[in-house]
Amino acid sequence: MNTVSIQSRKTLQVFSGRAYPELAEEIVKYLDVSLTPQSAYEFANGEIFVRFEESVRGADAFVVQSCGAGINTWVMETLIMIDALKRASADRITVVLPFYPYARQDKKHRGREPISARLISDLLHTAGADRLMTVDLHTDQTQGFFDGPVDHLFAMRLLGDHIAGKYKGEQITVVAPDSGRVRVAERWADLLGGAPLAFIHKTRDPKVANTVVTNRVVGDVEGRTCVLVDDMIDTGGTITKAATKLFEAGAKDVIIASTHGILSDPATERLRDCGATEIVLTNTLPIPADRLLPNMTVLSIAPLIAKAIHEVFEDGSVTSLFSADEA
Amino acid sequence: MNTVSIQSRKTLQVFSGRAYPELAEEIVKYLDVSLTPQSAYEFANGEIFVRFEESVRGADAFVVQSCGAGINTWVMETLIMIDALKRASADRITVVLPFYPYARQDKKHRGREPISARLISDLLHTAGADRLMTVDLHTDQTQGFFDGPVDHLFAMRLLGDHIAGKYKGEQITVVAPDSGRVRVAERWADLLGGAPLAFIHKTRDPKVANTVVTNRVVGDVEGRTCVLVDDMIDTGGTITKAATKLFEAGAKDVIIASTHGILSDPATERLRDCGATEIVLTNTLPIPADRLLPNMTVLSIAPLIAKAIHEVFEDGSVTSLFSADEA
Amino acid sequence: MNTVSIQSRKTLQVFSGRAYPELAEEIVKYLDVSLTPQSAYEFANGEIFVRFEESVRGADAFVVQSCGAGINTWVMETLIMIDALKRASADRITVVLPFYPYARQDKKHRGREPISARLISDLLHTAGADRLMTVDLHTDQTQGFFDGPVDHLFAMRLLGDHIAGKYKGEQITVVAPDSGRVRVAERWADLLGGAPLAFIHKTRDPKVANTVVTNRVVGDVEGRTCVLVDDMIDTGGTITKAATKLFEAGAKDVIIASTHGILSDPATERLRDCGATEIVLTNTLPIPADRLLPNMTVLSIAPLIAKAIHEVFEDGSVTSLFSADEA
Amino acid sequence: MNTVSIQSRKTLQVFSGRAYPELAEEIVKYLDVSLTPQSAYEFANGEIFVRFEESVRGADAFVVQSCGAGINTWVMETLIMIDALKRASADRITVVLPFYPYARQDKKHRGREPISARLISDLLHTAGADRLMTVDLHTDQTQGFFDGPVDHLFAMRLLGDHIAGKYKGEQITVVAPDSGRVRVAERWADLLGGAPLAFIHKTRDPKVANTVVTNRVVGDVEGRTCVLVDDMIDTGGTITKAATKLFEAGAKDVIIASTHGILSDPATERLRDCGATEIVLTNTLPIPADRLLPNMTVLSIAPLIAKAIHEVFEDGSVTSLFSADEA
Amino acid sequence: MNTVSIQSRKTLQVFSGRAYPELAEEIVKYLDVSLTPQSAYEFANGEIFVRFEESVRGADAFVVQSCGAGINTWVMETLIMIDALKRASADRITVVLPFYPYARQDKKHRGREPISARLISDLLHTAGADRLMTVDLHTDQTQGFFDGPVDHLFAMRLLGDHIAGKYKGEQITVVAPDSGRVRVAERWADLLGGAPLAFIHKTRDPKVANTVVTNRVVGDVEGRTCVLVDDMIDTGGTITKAATKLFEAGAKDVIIASTHGILSDPATERLRDCGATEIVLTNTLPIPADRLLPNMTVLSIAPLIAKAIHEVFEDGSVTSLFSADEA
Amino acid sequence: MNTVSIQSRKTLQVFSGRAYPELAEEIVKYLDVSLTPQSAYEFANGEIFVRFEESVRGADAFVVQSCGAGINTWVMETLIMIDALKRASADRITVVLPFYPYARQDKKHRGREPISARLISDLLHTAGADRLMTVDLHTDQTQGFFDGPVDHLFAMRLLGDHIAGKYKGEQITVVAPDSGRVRVAERWADLLGGAPLAFIHKTRDPKVANTVVTNRVVGDVEGRTCVLVDDMIDTGGTITKAATKLFEAGAKDVIIASTHGILSDPATERLRDCGATEIVLTNTLPIPADRLLPNMTVLSIAPLIAKAIHEVFEDGSVTSLFSADEA
Repeated sequence: MNTVSIQSRKTLQVFSGRAYPELAEEIVKYLDVSLTPQSAYEFANGEIFVRFEESVRGADAFVVQSCGAGINTWVMETLIMIDALKRASADRITVVLPFYPYARQDKKHRGREPISARLISDLLHTAGADRLMTVDLHTDQTQGFFDGPVDHLFAMRLLGDHIAGKYKGEQITVVAPDSGRVRVAERWADLLGGAPLAFIHKTRDPKVANTVVTNRVVGDVEGRTCVLVDDMIDTGGTITKAATKLFEAGAKDVIIASTHGILSDPATERLRDCGATEIVLTNTLPIPADRLLPNMTVLSIAPLIAKAIHEVFEDGSVTSLFSADEA
Repeated sequence: MNTVSIQSRKTLQVFSGRAYPELAEEIVKYLDVSLTPQSAYEFANGEIFVRFEESVRGADAFVVQSCGAGINTWVMETLIMIDALKRASADRITVVLPFYPYARQDKKHRGREPISARLISDLLHTAGADRLMTVDLHTDQTQGFFDGPVDHLFAMRLLGDHIAGKYKGEQITVVAPDSGRVRVAERWADLLGGAPLAFIHKTRDPKVANTVVTNRVVGDVEGRTCVLVDDMIDTGGTITKAATKLFEAGAKDVIIASTHGILSDPATERLRDCGATEIVLTNTLPIPADRLLPNMTVLSIAPLIAKAIHEVFEDGSVTSLFSADEA
Repeated sequence: MNTVSIQSRKTLQVFSGRAYPELAEEIVKYLDVSLTPQSAYEFANGEIFVRFEESVRGADAFVVQSCGAGINTWVMETLIMIDALKRASADRITVVLPFYPYARQDKKHRGREPISARLISDLLHTAGADRLMTVDLHTDQTQGFFDGPVDHLFAMRLLGDHIAGKYKGEQITVVAPDSGRVRVAERWADLLGGAPLAFIHKTRDPKVANTVVTNRVVGDVEGRTCVLVDDMIDTGGTITKAATKLFEAGAKDVIIASTHGILSDPATERLRDCGATEIVLTNTLPIPADRLLPNMTVLSIAPLIAKAIHEVFEDGSVTSLFSADEA
Repeated sequence: MNTVSIQSRKTLQVFSGRAYPELAEEIVKYLDVSLTPQSAYEFANGEIFVRFEESVRGADAFVVQSCGAGINTWVMETLIMIDALKRASADRITVVLPFYPYARQDKKHRGREPISARLISDLLHTAGADRLMTVDLHTDQTQGFFDGPVDHLFAMRLLGDHIAGKYKGEQITVVAPDSGRVRVAERWADLLGGAPLAFIHKTRDPKVANTVVTNRVVGDVEGRTCVLVDDMIDTGGTITKAATKLFEAGAKDVIIASTHGILSDPATERLRDCGATEIVLTNTLPIPADRLLPNMTVLSIAPLIAKAIHEVFEDGSVTSLFSADEA
Repeated sequence: MNTVSIQSRKTLQVFSGRAYPELAEEIVKYLDVSLTPQSAYEFANGEIFVRFEESVRGADAFVVQSCGAGINTWVMETLIMIDALKRASADRITVVLPFYPYARQDKKHRGREPISARLISDLLHTAGADRLMTVDLHTDQTQGFFDGPVDHLFAMRLLGDHIAGKYKGEQITVVAPDSGRVRVAERWADLLGGAPLAFIHKTRDPKVANTVVTNRVVGDVEGRTCVLVDDMIDTGGTITKAATKLFEAGAKDVIIASTHGILSDPATERLRDCGATEIVLTNTLPIPADRLLPNMTVLSIAPLIAKAIHEVFEDGSVTSLFSADEA
Repeated sequence: MNTVSIQSRKTLQVFSGRAYPELAEEIVKYLDVSLTPQSAYEFANGEIFVRFEESVRGADAFVVQSCGAGINTWVMETLIMIDALKRASADRITVVLPFYPYARQDKKHRGREPISARLISDLLHTAGADRLMTVDLHTDQTQGFFDGPVDHLFAMRLLGDHIAGKYKGEQITVVAPDSGRVRVAERWADLLGGAPLAFIHKTRDPKVANTVVTNRVVGDVEGRTCVLVDDMIDTGGTITKAATKLFEAGAKDVIIASTHGILSDPATERLRDCGATEIVLTNTLPIPADRLLPNMTVLSIAPLIAKAIHEVFEDGSVTSLFSADEA
């Protein structure tokens, strides 16, 4: 006999970075597996070490990392985990980044700048990632930065169902906090049954570079319940100024909806003071207890990610999970 | 003597594809060189052949191609020219595509679609292009698709100066024809001295995919001179419907400004009939005589491109040419 | 439980470009599958769009494209289809090009020319093709241009069996239409039972570059039935001039056999007028009804391609399909 | 029906280079398969030709080559075999090099030198190797030269068990023949139950580059049974000089243990004359009968390699085979 | 005139990361240039932004980054700076990392570990680095991880001259703190005029993985001035335990010499208490004032790096700077 | 001052492998430089070591290697030299292989074979070669295997001028020794003023694979002076059988012309006995004195290669050196 043959099997294994293990734990519960155990720690000088405690040979590996505070450390840990999986003969490596780091640096605003969002994709690819899964990219074009399949999940329906249910009957206007987010707001308007749109126009003085002179509300918001939408809230400056402007323009109410709650200081304070009725977020990033506000609702992204991992593993048709336009 | 040394020199050579040689001819006039002569033709079955008639060894080569009608043929010709330059020992190859082909397919709108704008960048890179120069990309993120330096030129100031001069004293509102172009319109508003903004909101029926139910003007346009801006006019449907909507909403006047005049049928007819006072374009793409309208102004992009090539060749600081935000 | 395992399966899916869907339809009939449905069309400016209507995750994908008239458009469509498959997580992508485009530009004839046949291989690889299947390459060396497995099918036996059956008892001489095709003619001579060989010698004036002065028949053709063989017939100039020359040299009869019927103008006219008894082709390229001649026989390549796809999918041993020398 | 699906299988196939087929034959016996038959020979000018006589489509292919005398020929043959497997659609290619060629040139000792050990890894990767399996690399860092999984097997336990069994009760000191091998000797000391360590210190004259002035034994060896360990014995100069030095320093006995017996001239003579009681080697390289000494023991590496191939093929957990530190 | 030619010039530009700008400032003083001004800061969520304030087109760029505390942040900043330089058309990019991050993870100690030192090289290459300059790599093999030229500088002569001058007349023994550093200690012994060697042998219990049972001094140290050498001092555990062991073994005096002073807690305390007469370091990493000890000498690496940059820029022959063996 | 600028210079350096240093010495004489001195030797086990004795930083490096007997060793040495040049910061590396190794394995003749000629190109590229220069490739398509510029020199004019001068007035027929070389023979016929052509037809028995049954001369050779041309003479079987056949067919005289004189046994004997008046070769490969025959003429290729290197270094227009068709 010249050869020996066996049936091929594929095995799902999920790995969690240390940035936000609670989310990974929640995801694997839906998948009915456990996280593959690992040792991961930092040496005294900050160098990260990772070792998996069980075989990963032939695995269909999913590496879940949620890049919140300490973002550069978590990016590096992700790269190191991928490298270890590649060298240990994992069959296919999918990186699951619910929040894509450096998503905002997706173009050169002026000369001699990096395009760090592309750099991140190239680094993941170099380390050995075959596929990428992420939620609500800052711009859709970032999908094209990765040289391989990208599963781009949308949290809009999750957020939208919550708002549509809770504010049924209100006179809703969807508002974009700046000119760059109007397209996303338009998708929201469709999702909420054809609501009208508005946005905040920032006027700059053409003689002084990059100085915002004044903000104006474009669109009708007087007496309306404004759903102010953005993909992420970092320090909250833009979105809370927008809320203030909306109230000045006669808005009856403001609800803030955003996928990624980065909530860097002084976001919590600003959100508390901005007058919004409710702030709706997901847990793509960890939201520490001391940043939770009474009027803040955090919806879990875990079921959506778990469903997507399951479908990817089984080669199922999962477009319905991925497409906002089909919402 | 073990070695022999000579001074290094660099030599600027410009090559033109056959799509729109008039533009390349105009560019080299500003550079005070001639196009490098070449044989280029198609075999009977459509296969393209290119041969350069003079040495290109060590050249700092700029390949100018303007991908208008017959776009796939011109993309292929560009790739073939780059391959010939690479194999003939050109030192550095910069592709100059005033209109970047497939710029609109820069993301997956739904599942199982290509991202052709990234593909184009990868094809150029594979053929041997070291650098890319282009004008007014459909989205700025496309810069990040190319794995190398991109010189992204902006025609806005060229168009804007024309309009600011001619319509001085008018009550101008800048209008985006859809929600995705509001950010660009905002830059225009700054350029025109802090003009107000408006845009056209397309409402879709959430129960029927991709069907536009109705358009609404968001922002105040009544009695105003509306400058309707877009990066390209293909069949002109979106922009001329926007013009009609603006007149319905009481606009006094509509001026259309766009960098790339693709003008596929029935664009000419639609533009003629839409009521706009003036249509301002550049010649990044050839505009045949039979598509010119009496109220159409075509500004030449050649001086801007020539200046950029000159600065790239001389390693000058050319950020001022490239940045819209510094306009 | 840390992991979950399932049996791996592989799924054959066949995709057709728009160049010649009839051939793809014929191929899948032999495979007992249907073409995976897709939307494919061109935007007004010629940019191609493709979207697959069913999941392709994990597929063993075969993309069939037959690059006839409009060749650059079909090359680009093929690249775009591959990109879409790659991004949609197809497991393995085999491009089936019955006629390999730009096969003739497989070397630099003079300085500063492209090697477009290599470029095509690199473009396919960059887009995401893992494997290539093709029929009767212009030169065998082109296999080495692709960085991966190439299944190189031969149509010679298909054509040869037809001729051997129909012209049994004739005194056959195999003739190459020029000096570069004598090696292939020699294979034909073996296939037809050890027939003698001849070829047409083109004499050039050494003082005037690339000018053919005169043609001579080398080898004995007087009173013989000449089987004139070539890999492709484009405008038919070379092969019909060869036929004329053979009749001048006393040939009793001329039969023309060629795998790829490109048949660019004025091929039909020339073939009709050249005096050949029969022209035998395959349908690697579409042959429109108005180019069919009464003495033209078109044999279908579909069974051979279908068999090869089947064996590749099943990891069978298919060398016998691929090797001419084992004929 | 649009698609057809079948169960995926994987098939183990083992291929042997011509350098040392006896080892490959021994390996496959343990795996219960036969070597895939092939034609392999050299043309008159030394160019190597390889052709496999059976289908390798879809194979999980292991190429075993043992690079002894004629090393450059065997490296080239290995590359050619990999290329043939890649082009014949093998699914995964693992190169099994029991002795890694050019392992000693793993750094630039001075300026303007190659790093040939990295070059070898890159050449294997370029030819198409997906994975590498090897035994006792000269330095562990060489694992990092290959861009993919490396299974690094250790022969130390094999050698150590032999010595521990045979010399039980002796007062053993483990000795490194030079300063660079002390770390490996330390592992041996642990394996042999905490034996003490010594090494040979080579003193150089700082004024004359690369000239060893004198050797000194560092550590206590008087009256001890010295186990002198190294990864390879080439001409045997270093290790036999070390043996001599140990006897001068009062060693009772010297046992030499080394994984790779290169045994270039005059190694046999030196080993015969050096006074060592026993020389223990493995057969990672062929040891011709005329180089065998009465006090030389050659242990077979085949069971270890066979076990590793089996585990790799079955995706088993084989870390215990690979790790010296876990010995 | 078809072309225009100019003399090529090359321009040296030095860029500094934010980890340790004082070192970069010191380096450029020796080169008689200034650091190219830049904006570099972190967004609220920790994402790094860099923009160069002057043109870098055509520059021969040297990026100096000293990866001390916060190491992952500085690695990421380095990658982002390289990306920005690449996209801004720098001609050649040399990364100067006086301390190579993750140098210790240069091999898999056990299964399923990363080889992070190789990963770092690949990340730098992917970002766009053409060349690498570094000082005293943990193992010389790490040079081979980078796919391009590496200038590997040695600080040994700098440290050695200091010690040789100050301790002239002492009876010096060079001591390696563990078995893996004996080779480097041997070079030191040569540099210090043929001094004897010793090292610390760590005995492990073979039944309990990775547990050091006891340390022994191998070699004669009684009454000697021990120069204890290592490439880096992180928490100082190994080296200070070695010092203690040496005193126990009767050493008269201990001097500690190390290139990289990482000095993570509790290194300062340990070094203060270990009894060493002097600790000699270089400033490849910043050493904050509160970690300086009265018996600590910090020699500047800046002149050596400046000299190397100068020679690289001028294509000089600089092997003498790079080679320890030629010391 | 932020930056410092200097004039760029480029420096020609030539390096010679050890296969045939006499040719390299002859080439550099024409270039008025010396070979860069180097140490190159083999370790006892055959591993090659190379070190350059002078700086190569910034060099325009040409590596000359003539791969005669011991071909695999010389290929490996070439790769190692390139690696050393790359790591030592050479600016551009051109490999000069007068005889391209493995040129005949440029396609798969049957299934499961390598394409070693492509492999060689990829290995050179991986090692770091930027450009390739070679003479008379076995097939022109091999140019396309290398991913970069190839300077393909032709020796035909050198050989042809010799023959045209010496045999002026003879009735010359150019003869190809087999069907695959007729195209090259046709170029020779043009070069010799429009001489007639003939070739040897090998008939195979279609029922027994690969068995040549009989040879026939196709074309008129009776009473003619036959110039029998081939690119290389290895064992000389094909070409001397052709000579015999020509004499049987009534040829008056036979002159053999070939670029590459490999002359493996028993070529010398066969050539001596075949009855040819003269055998004309070049020295692309070394021809040892004991293989020289009285009627053998060896023309030096060195002036052509030197001229090409000079033009490449100076970026001159050298197409006339490279193109056979322009002869």
